Amino acid sequence: MKKPEIGHHISQRYNEELEDVRNKVLYMGGLVEQQLADAVQALTTMDSALAEVVITNDYKVNRLEVEIDDECIHILARRQPAAGDLRLLMAIIKTITDLERIGDEAERVGRMALRFIEGESTKDTKPLLGIGYFGDHVRRNLHDALDAFARMDVQAATQIAKEDLKIDQEYEGILRQLMTYMMEDPRSIPRVIGVMWSARALERIGDRARNICEYVIYLVGGKDVRHTSLEQVEEDVRGSNRSEKDK
Amino acid sequence: MKKPEIGHHISQRYNEELEDVRNKVLYMGGLVEQQLADAVQALTTMDSALAEVVITNDYKVNRLEVEIDDECIHILARRQPAAGDLRLLMAIIKTITDLERIGDEAERVGRMALRFIEGESTKDTKPLLGIGYFGDHVRRNLHDALDAFARMDVQAATQIAKEDLKIDQEYEGILRQLMTYMMEDPRSIPRVIGVMWSARALERIGDRARNICEYVIYLVGGKDVRHTSLEQVEEDVRGSNRSEKDK
Repeated sequence: MKKPEIGHHISQRYNEELEDVRNKVLYMGGLVEQQLADAVQALTTMDSALAEVVITNDYKVNRLEVEIDDECIHILARRQPAAGDLRLLMAIIKTITDLERIGDEAERVGRMALRFIEGESTKDTKPLLGIGYFGDHVRRNLHDALDAFARMDVQAATQIAKEDLKIDQEYEGILRQLMTYMMEDPRSIPRVIGVMWSARALERIGDRARNICEYVIYLVGGKDVRHTSLEQVEEDVRGSNRSEKDK
Repeated sequence: MKKPEIGHHISQRYNEELEDVRNKVLYMGGLVEQQLADAVQALTTMDSALAEVVITNDYKVNRLEVEIDDECIHILARRQPAAGDLRLLMAIIKTITDLERIGDEAERVGRMALRFIEGESTKDTKPLLGIGYFGDHVRRNLHDALDAFARMDVQAATQIAKEDLKIDQEYEGILRQLMTYMMEDPRSIPRVIGVMWSARALERIGDRARNICEYVIYLVGGKDVRHTSLEQVEEDVRGSNRSEKDK
């Protein structure tokens, strides 16, 4: 399968612009990943200072989204890109929307952490038990999705998108556990609900990592896989790799 | 304030293409609004047949997103649009992503409705009390946002975006009420949690209606208001209208 290459334009300036926008997306991805890691750590270690850092830093993510959007419009208007670059730019425009929303979810987890820490004098951290591992799983999946984006690796993207199913199952398990806590001790309900929202936020981040994978497949394969089964995509990728070898 | 006009191109075919893609967005908006109305009605009247209809119809929303995306890429590649049209197309690409996700949230409410109806033999509908009114408020706001999009009315869009604050407040009220139910009767927890997810889905739909308003402001005003206060935007719009009159 042919990968779209960036450094193939006659205009050196155009190459640089595309490379620059791509690097900014990767930088934004790294920032969002850090925000997610910090938010989960703030919640599980009840570190309110770290939670404050996450909440404060969200503006950096927002600023990057606006900046990259502007650069994309600029390139679209000045360079009138052909099909391959157009797909890259579409994927970037969609990816940064998801990254910005992941940033919002991380901020939400930060706020829940603050509420959890301040909320009660009892230091019952039992509801947090599953969250650390779950958050780590979601963060690793986001990292892998961004990695597939950086390498434009459609095969990896397909695998990572499938990982989201496991995240959904883990999430269901955590929900059941949290409901049990609440039923056993109704006074804990307000506190546990906050943990539940955090778990939900993490599950949504998993969905968005999956979105990014789908843009990679869409971008590289030129094939729209949104709303089709990943098994089908995998088969298609395998088929296309085979025919590539046959050449 | 100058509105971007669609029918101003020398190529009649190009005008038709832009008009066609815009009409499809409005059609998609109407469909999503109907899905939302049906989902809320299914939940509040415990109508499982209607919930099934919502769940089944989501594929139509998904199909429209892919179709419109393709048309936008086609126009970008063939017509190499200038700044104004480019902003319109960017707004469309972003709006349909939000519409598709609103469709997903409506489907989620439909699933929660099914679970709520099937879940228990006791017909305690108390937790549903606030949801009908809240859902109607969210639906009206989405309708107004789509209307502002259709008319490209930046002033209306600013007003509607502000309405989201009220939706957020209503949502907080519903949450508190639901938590009280749970604490009073812990056996109701699994059932009430489903209603809580539905309320959350509706609140998120409010956020997305606000996103659509922001794209209108961005598109028409050529001004990026994401992540800035709406009061500032309102002031800017007023100022700009004044200077328009002064001319």
